[in-house]
Parts: sequence; structure tokens; C-alpha cells
Amino acid sequence: MSQRIVIVNPNSTEAVTAGISAAVAPLRKAEGPALDCLTLEEGPPGIESLAHIHQVVPPLLARLEREAADASVIACFSDPGLAAARTASARPVFGIGESSFRAALRQGKRFGIVAILEASTIRHRRYVAELGLAESFAASRPLNLGVLELQDHDKTLARMLEVGRALRDEDQADVLVLGCAGMTGFSAELSEALGLPVIEPCQAAAAEAVTALEAPAGPQA
Amino acid sequence: MSQRIVIVNPNSTEAVTAGISAAVAPLRKAEGPALDCLTLEEGPPGIESLAHIHQVVPPLLARLEREAADASVIACFSDPGLAAARTASARPVFGIGESSFRAALRQGKRFGIVAILEASTIRHRRYVAELGLAESFAASRPLNLGVLELQDHDKTLARMLEVGRALRDEDQADVLVLGCAGMTGFSAELSEALGLPVIEPCQAAAAEAVTALEAPAGPQA
Amino acid sequence: MSQRIVIVNPNSTEAVTAGISAAVAPLRKAEGPALDCLTLEEGPPGIESLAHIHQVVPPLLARLEREAADASVIACFSDPGLAAARTASARPVFGIGESSFRAALRQGKRFGIVAILEASTIRHRRYVAELGLAESFAASRPLNLGVLELQDHDKTLARMLEVGRALRDEDQADVLVLGCAGMTGFSAELSEALGLPVIEPCQAAAAEAVTALEAPAGPQA
Amino acid sequence: MSQRIVIVNPNSTEAVTAGISAAVAPLRKAEGPALDCLTLEEGPPGIESLAHIHQVVPPLLARLEREAADASVIACFSDPGLAAARTASARPVFGIGESSFRAALRQGKRFGIVAILEASTIRHRRYVAELGLAESFAASRPLNLGVLELQDHDKTLARMLEVGRALRDEDQADVLVLGCAGMTGFSAELSEALGLPVIEPCQAAAAEAVTALEAPAGPQA
Amino acid sequence: MSQRIVIVNPNSTEAVTAGISAAVAPLRKAEGPALDCLTLEEGPPGIESLAHIHQVVPPLLARLEREAADASVIACFSDPGLAAARTASARPVFGIGESSFRAALRQGKRFGIVAILEASTIRHRRYVAELGLAESFAASRPLNLGVLELQDHDKTLARMLEVGRALRDEDQADVLVLGCAGMTGFSAELSEALGLPVIEPCQAAAAEAVTALEAPAGPQA
Amino acid sequence: MSQRIVIVNPNSTEAVTAGISAAVAPLRKAEGPALDCLTLEEGPPGIESLAHIHQVVPPLLARLEREAADASVIACFSDPGLAAARTASARPVFGIGESSFRAALRQGKRFGIVAILEASTIRHRRYVAELGLAESFAASRPLNLGVLELQDHDKTLARMLEVGRALRDEDQADVLVLGCAGMTGFSAELSEALGLPVIEPCQAAAAEAVTALEAPAGPQA
Repeated sequence: MSQRIVIVNPNSTEAVTAGISAAVAPLRKAEGPALDCLTLEEGPPGIESLAHIHQVVPPLLARLEREAADASVIACFSDPGLAAARTASARPVFGIGESSFRAALRQGKRFGIVAILEASTIRHRRYVAELGLAESFAASRPLNLGVLELQDHDKTLARMLEVGRALRDEDQADVLVLGCAGMTGFSAELSEALGLPVIEPCQAAAAEAVTALEAPAGPQA
Repeated sequence: MSQRIVIVNPNSTEAVTAGISAAVAPLRKAEGPALDCLTLEEGPPGIESLAHIHQVVPPLLARLEREAADASVIACFSDPGLAAARTASARPVFGIGESSFRAALRQGKRFGIVAILEASTIRHRRYVAELGLAESFAASRPLNLGVLELQDHDKTLARMLEVGRALRDEDQADVLVLGCAGMTGFSAELSEALGLPVIEPCQAAAAEAVTALEAPAGPQA
Repeated sequence: MSQRIVIVNPNSTEAVTAGISAAVAPLRKAEGPALDCLTLEEGPPGIESLAHIHQVVPPLLARLEREAADASVIACFSDPGLAAARTASARPVFGIGESSFRAALRQGKRFGIVAILEASTIRHRRYVAELGLAESFAASRPLNLGVLELQDHDKTLARMLEVGRALRDEDQADVLVLGCAGMTGFSAELSEALGLPVIEPCQAAAAEAVTALEAPAGPQA
Repeated sequence: MSQRIVIVNPNSTEAVTAGISAAVAPLRKAEGPALDCLTLEEGPPGIESLAHIHQVVPPLLARLEREAADASVIACFSDPGLAAARTASARPVFGIGESSFRAALRQGKRFGIVAILEASTIRHRRYVAELGLAESFAASRPLNLGVLELQDHDKTLARMLEVGRALRDEDQADVLVLGCAGMTGFSAELSEALGLPVIEPCQAAAAEAVTALEAPAGPQA
Repeated sequence: MSQRIVIVNPNSTEAVTAGISAAVAPLRKAEGPALDCLTLEEGPPGIESLAHIHQVVPPLLARLEREAADASVIACFSDPGLAAARTASARPVFGIGESSFRAALRQGKRFGIVAILEASTIRHRRYVAELGLAESFAASRPLNLGVLELQDHDKTLARMLEVGRALRDEDQADVLVLGCAGMTGFSAELSEALGLPVIEPCQAAAAEAVTALEAPAGPQA
Repeated sequence: MSQRIVIVNPNSTEAVTAGISAAVAPLRKAEGPALDCLTLEEGPPGIESLAHIHQVVPPLLARLEREAADASVIACFSDPGLAAARTASARPVFGIGESSFRAALRQGKRFGIVAILEASTIRHRRYVAELGLAESFAASRPLNLGVLELQDHDKTLARMLEVGRALRDEDQADVLVLGCAGMTGFSAELSEALGLPVIEPCQAAAAEAVTALEAPAGPQA
């Protein structure tokens, strides 16, 4: 069938959208739904604050409403506007934060989050609690790298390994979640080096969207 | 690729296996993995007690080891031998109980379980707690129907609607889980009548197996 | 001192702002801070959906930034933009939802929420969990009254008493929270009729703002 | 109005009472309630054991009953006799332990307690759980200083900074609570040095008492 | 050996002490420890309020200190002075509330408490939470009988059956706890009529004391 | 009376059975029940994997059914077949894992488990959660010793002290549980060296069995 899943990157950086598209590539099948990755032009170059999150929601909701889609994914780890998007549509909508936690539960028993900044870590804890998953949450630990440093692949990977090891050895995490849509390129290296499954959140949400179309459980048209 | 997912019904009743196969049919794709539903001949006609569960585990583990599979599903809601099967294999193994709870979290916020017997309900509560999902658990309510009565489709459906309504209205469940591999035929009717998503557990586990092959997150070959 | 607390009603209905102002009147003291209640002109007449909440946040944040205030209150029970407003300002900011839960803990041990609509009740449960207060939460029960019916004081009070009684007798709540900024006029009648403390959330948040100015605990200028 | 709040120090050391009076001074307003700090002569010089706590309750309850007050505060972090005092009076009664936890929730998301002795820390954990606040509790860590050492301001402050840093950096506390009525003088220095809000419990309870008089929510005369 | 367990009834009613002695009779063995049930003369005829609890603690602690015992039991369901008594003695001390909850966990998975008065039920919930057992707590439901009515065995039993049935059928309790030292005579009838185990708390605590002497686990002389 | 408690060691190593018998010796009384420790010949020499656990359950259940006993104990820390054995018998059955946790609650407030292998630690955490005791669980830490090393008493004790100290000092455990039926000989030394109570699980379960016969609470013949 010609079904279509729309994945919206709410920041305006095309390179991030391209990374998301690469991350979900293994889910594209000849007979399966299309997985279209879009960039929200109205978004800021990066979503770096709570104010950014709030600014992005109205144009994001408008965009989701305009796109003809059988299912949608909001590709920002803070899941901006997720509940509102669900209310506004009869079709399934996924947020990469929420979906990645469920994917982690499929791969392990206690998940740890690799965060960008210190400021996100308590927010992660709270979001996990809001979703009723606190019992399976090991910790969120920050990379504490600036934007420029994040451009440096080797430096970022080295720091990710450090953080991942702490999550595994000190917090007893047995599965890791990448806490940002922009870390798509690191999951394989990280998983191999640490011997743990690593959840790339965009892929996790896209996989849930594919499943929702293949095996719908709800009262839908 | 010619990947294969094996779904083992640990009771020896072929009709149940056939129902499982029908339930996972929407997940079969030309280019996707085969979904082979097998019957454990050594199993009892039905798994009706804890003793049955224990008797079934050794032959079930042996069977899983013999079958060449890229992923496996144990198709009994009690997930007999699940942890042992995972330890014994480098490939992903799913249990329909565990998988159905995660599927429920994808469709709603508080799940209720339609159980067969009163005796299962505290067991369900405990299993959910063991998995760290107690915060999202509304309740498990029993049909309390005997084997003969369960043969009667109309009577069973009527009782399921009664139980489902209680889960929705008294326990505030917003998604239901069918607590048995042998209820596969009822999900659509139940969902439509109650206006809630209904998780058929065999399909839920098979969908996780498909996803695990399409988007592996772990340290695998 | 000439300190000033700004209380912003994020809907554009002046009558609601007037009700809020009346609710916080007992906190106005000759020597205390001014309590200025403002209306967000950009807001919708009422905040009735998640989309409304999201639309309201950017202008609300902008307004809070423009107002010269020693402390601020966001007067909508969903606390729209609360975390972002706190990040943006070195001065204390309160949301009437969050503040009312703390006030409830001061008056009792298990609080129940009088909600407007069914749709809010699971949201309330989740917000309470996010704040780490699930153990003290009895339930949220909806009035399920339409906008017109809410204009009818006697009808609304009768329905509130019904809901409040259910929270007290079936859910074992020993303190009630009014789950909306527009119910300010009902707390005294409700409290007297039910024999329970009733938290009016605008007053609760304003009281916290007053306290924060009188007894600051943090690293502030 | 000539309202009066009575704050009883249940140990017999006048210097502690004087410290409490200084701590609540910012809450005294010309038009506000009087804040009278009293010493329980029957109390021991310091409350250092569970036996002391129990001995102090009967004379404390008797004293509270004798004093004419619109609201009362029990100024010992173990909140001796709090529930009984509430039952005995129609007027609001506050305990500095309980009130300080609520004040901490107003200033942060996870609170840490600066305890005097190792023996108190598990007690603190339990009390927090009893109040339903375990989700927001980071840890309680002891100073482990003897009575003589506590007289030495510089030594005590140095040790407090050490403990506060551990609460902040190892336990992820974002707000601190001083776990004793006798630490009133340290909050400003501690807050400034650590960059965290610090709750002085006597002030926290007095502020709740003032609020209760200004904005009563309950069914009171 | 001539070991001795002292069981102190902190109210002054000898009939209650006699009932306790009868309840622990099955634990008396020729070669086992003596089980001496004592009455606290300083106590009120019944412990009916929080003020009573507090008044009773100092003489109770003094009495425990005077009695030569290898282990002690405080025979009031509120466990007055339990923590202090433990601190004061190197020998094991048990409270019938705490011990009965552990006994309930030995007999079932979710315990319900048969309380005397409405006022106790939230206190029970809190005490269970303080002990970390909230997950296994079904509910506490009150008899709401006055002192005179409690003298009437048939009336009391009838009401207990009513409350016990509600705990079993509505709250899903699979084991009951008698929430008072004065209900010793009802456990057998109640258990038989409801088909559930019933914990008599004095016997539960005495059994723990006997076990502690037979199989000490701690660092003791 | 000539009552009999059967304690089955589900591995086939007689030396382990002898150790268990020694551990429960203090509970044997002239007038009390016999405590017979049996070896399951069909078991493997040691239970070292989940597959072993499952293999052992059917012969273990058969053996329990054949033995005439007033109460039974399954002497493997994983409690294999416990729920099934309970369902199959009207007499009380105990598992040394479950019983040891309750014994720990009798001796302290937060228990830590001394595990053999890393792999067990998350399993312990989950089992504790399933039993509703997560709030009282400090941590499980592994010895990580091979079979040969475990033969070396001094080496094992040294490692146990190391692990026990970490549980006490880093995880705030105030009581330890030996996480294996084969550690019976170490509890006294460990307790003395660390100043903490140490629960030997076979003794804990046997003590519960003795108590169940002396003070039955349930609806039994």
C-alpha cells in the first residue's frame, strides 16, 4: 500500500534531518510505508532551551496538520507538542523521547540516557516519572559539550564512551538511550564498545509508527 | 532476506496455534521475515496451572534451541521460560505477556488486563510490578468462565464486554490487553464496542520481533 | 517596600481576571507587595485544549519578560510555560497547578482535584506523578459540564458538591483542589458543605509568591 | 488584626529560641501576626535522642493548649507531637520538618537534608516516605560533629559545605534543607557558597503559619 | 533455657492483657521462652487518641527498661515508642503493628486492615508507607463501632465480616490484619467465614520475638 | 507433636544439604517439629543458570508432593517453583529468597544482598520489586568469584567483607542477606566484622515454617 509516515525535525538544520533519514533507512521496505523526513523551516537552528521548545510547538502542530500522513513522528527528544498533536489527529503520532524509552524496555531492564547538557538530566528524570517508568530508569548523565565540540566526532565519541561507561558501571544501566535527535551517527560504535544495546530515538519512534500501521490495535477508521 | 521468526505455542492444541497464526498474519510481508507458528507437542492441551507452566519450560527451551530462528516468541501469557531462553540465545526472544504490556504503553496510559481466572489477577499485578510498570497498570479482571463456556463465542464476548467496561469505567483503563493467547479472535469486536485500543498479545510480540530484526539496537553480529 | 507580584491570566476573558483578583485579595497588605492581575490579550477566550495551551505560551513568555515584577504567577491550572519562564528569569515564578498541590499538602494528606472535563483527569494524574506527588494523590474527577452550564452558579455548585463528595467518600481525599482558575467563587461554599479544606489555586500560588519575597531561600540578588 | 503565632522550641536552651526568633524576623510585619518564640522549660537542653523526643511531647502538648494562638509551630525537626497537636486544636499547627520539605519543593525538585548525626539519616528517609515525598528526596547526609565542635562556627560551616557539596554533586539535590532548628545562622553562607537555595526550617514553618492565617482554605471558625 | 519475653499492654485494662495472653498461648513451649503479659498501670483504660499514645510512651519506656527481658513486645497497634525502645536496648523489641504487617506478607500478597475508627485509616496508610510496604497494602477500613457496641460480640463479628468482605472483594486483599490489640478473640471466626488468613497482631509480634531468640541474626552477645 | 518440616536442597550436592542442616540446627527443639533436610538427586551439582532452575522445578514439585510434611522449604535463593508448590498444597511452603527478605525487614530497614554473580543482581532487584519490597532494598552486589575460588574460605570471606562494606557504606544497607543457600557458614563472621545483622536464608525460611506451625493464621485443616 502507499502509506506514508511523516517525521518532522522541528529545528531548521537540514543536516540533522539528513541524519534522521539515515537512521530510519533500515525501516524502509519496498512494500512498506514511505518514511519522509521533513525540516520545520520555522524552527531555530537547534532546540537548545525551553523557550525554543515552546516557540516551535505552534508551527509544528500546524505543519503536522497540513501534511497528509498515516502516522507522524516528532523528532525532538523533548517531545514538543506530542499530546496536543495526538488530540488533534485520529492517526497515530509518536515522539522520539517516549518511543525510545519503550524501545529501551524491549532491550533491557534499566535504561540510562546520554544527555547533552546537565540541565536536561532532571527534566529527563521527571519525564520518565510522568510516563510511569521511573522504576526502570537508571540515570541521565550529561556530555556537557558545547556546540563546537559536538562537531568533533572523535571528541564527542570519547566523551560518550565515558558517560556510557558511568551509566553502565555506576548506575547499573543495561541499555542506553541517546538523548537527542542529533546523535544518530554514534549508536553502532557506542554499542560495540560498551557491549550494551543503544537506542537511537528516531529509529525507535519510526519503528513504532511502522508497527502501528501494520498491526493497529485501536478504534481507527 | 530470508529471515525467520518462530512463534511457539506451548500448549498442544493446534487450534490455538492456528488462531495465533491468524493473529500475526497482518505482519507477514513478501520481503519481510517468515512468521512460523509451531505447536509444542509435549505441552498439555491447555496451560491451566502453575504446574503446567513449569512442566512446559524444559521441552519449550529444548524446542527453541532446536529451531533455526532469527527471533523467537513464546506464545503463552505467563511468559514461561522467557528469561532462560534469552540467556540461552544471542538472538532476540519475546514473551507475549511482556510484549503486550509495552504495546499497551504505546496505545494508552493505563492498561487493564482481561484475565481468564481470578487466580491470575494477583499474578498479573505482580508480574507488572516486576517489570517496573506498576504505575501504568489499572487492574486485571477475570472472565471467570469455564472451559466449556469459553467455546461459546457469544457468551464469551458478552462477558468480555462486561469486564472491559469495568476496566474502562471503574479502573480508568484507556487500553485493554487480552490476557491469554487463546483470545485472538475477540480484539476487533471488543475494541469497536468499547472505543478503546485492544492489544492482542501474540501480535504484539510478533511485531516486536519484526522490529528487532529491522532495527537492531544491540551488540549483535 | 514597593514590591510587585504579577499574576497573568493567559486567557483573554476579563471576568476571569477579575475573579482571580478577588481570590487573592486577602493577601493584599498595606506594607506588602502589590498583586497585579493582568489579562493576556493574545490568549483565547478560554483555554480548552492542548492546542490552546501551546498557542498561549509564546505570548505569555513575552509578556512575563516585559512586565517588571519581583515575582510572577501563571494563572492557568495547566501551568503553561512554567519551566521556561523560570529558566528565563532570576525572579521566582509560580504556576497555579503546582502551587495548589503544595498548598493541599499543607492542609491534608491526600488531595482530590475537581476537574472540568474527563479529558483532564489522566493529565492531572500524570502531572502529579511528574512532580513526585503521586503518593498523596487521591483522584481527579470531572464535572463534565459544558460552558453554558458552568455559567449557572447553582447547577455548577450542585455538581461540584457531588464530585467533591465522591472524592471524599470514595477516593478518601481529605483536601480538595479546584482544578481551574475560573472556579474561584466556589471554594467557601464547597468547603463548608463538605467539611474539607478547599484549595483555590490562584490564591495558593499568590501566597507562595508573597512568601518567596518575605523569606527568600535561594541565591538571589 | 492582632493575630498571634506561637513558635515553641521544645528544648530548654534560650539561645536556640533566640536563633529561631532571628530566623523568622523577616516575616514580622506591622500589620501582620505577632510571631512569639517560646522556650519549653520542661525540655532537655537539647533533643538528642528518641527518648528525649518522647519525654518532650506531653509537656509540649500541654503548653500548646495553654497558649492562646491563632496558629502554632513546633520548632524541632523531628516534629514531636505534631499529629496529636493538630487533633487537639481547631487552629493550624505546623512542624518545622514537614514544613521545610514543602518549602524545598517550592524551591527545587530534589531536596537533600543536612543532618547532625548518622542516626538521623534513615529516620529522615522514612519520614519523607511517610509524607509521600520519597520521589523528591535526594538524600540525608550527616555532619557527624559533636556538641563541642558545633559551637565552632568556622568548623561547622566548613563541614556543612562539604556535606552540601556531596548532596549537590553526588545525590543531585537542587535544594538543601537544614535538618535542625539550631542551624539557623548558616543558611545564607551555605546558599551563597553552593549556589543552591537553602531552607531554614523554622522560617519555612513560620511562613506557612502566616499564609494559613492570610489565606485560610479550611473549614474554620 | 530460661529466656523471657515481656509483652506490655500499654493500656490499664486487665481484660485486654488477658486476651493478649490467650492469643500468644500457642507459642508457649516447655523448653521455650516464657511469654509474660504485663499491664501498664499508668496507661489510660484504652488508647483512643494521639494524645493517649504520647502520654503512654514515657511510662512505657521506663517499664521496658525496668523489666528483665530477652525480648520485648509493645502491644498497641500504633507501636508507641517502638523506635525509642529499640535505641534504648540491645535486645530485640517488637511492635504489634509492624510485626503484623510482616506476618501478613508471609501469608499473602496484599493485606487489608480491620480498623476500629475512620480516623485510624489514613494513619495506617502512612505507617505502611513509612515502613516501605505500600505496594502490598490493599486498604484499611473502619468498623466505626463505639465502645459499647464493641462489647457486643455478635454485633462486632457481624460488622467485622462486613468490613472483611469489602477488603477482600473490593480492595483485593488476600490476607487480613486485625488493627487493634483488643480484637484477639475474633481471628478464627473471621478467617473461617471469609476463607482468608487473618493476622492477630499480638501473636504475630510474639512469634517474631520467639524467632529472634531462636535464630538471632545480629551482632548480639 | 510429631510435626515435620521438609527442607529440599534442589541441587544434588550433599555437602550443601549438610550446610543447610547445620544452619537450621538452632531451630530444632525436643518438642518442636522435625527439620529434615533432603537432597534432590535429580538436580544438577549446582544451580548456576536459569536453565538449571527450570530443569529442577518438575522433579522438585514431584518430590514435595511425595514427602509427607506439615510445611516445606525450597532451599534455593531463586525460589524455583515456589508459587506452583503453594498452589499444589494446602500446607505452607516457603522459599529461602522470599523468607530472607522478610527476616531482613525484621532486623533492619534497608537490606543489601551478597550475590554470587553479577548476573543475579538485576534479577534480585526485580524479584524484590515483584514482592512489593523495593522501598526497603538497598542493592545487590556480586562476589564475582568462580567455583574454585568459593572453595577457599579465607578468600571468600575477604571478598564478602569487601562487598558487605560497600553495601553498608555506599548503599546504606543496615542489614545483609546472603544470596545463596551455600553461604551458610559465613554469617557469624560477617555479622561480627561489619557490626550488622546478617540473614542466612535457609534459617530464615525454616524459622517461618516453624512459626507457621505454631501460630497458623490461615484457613487450614
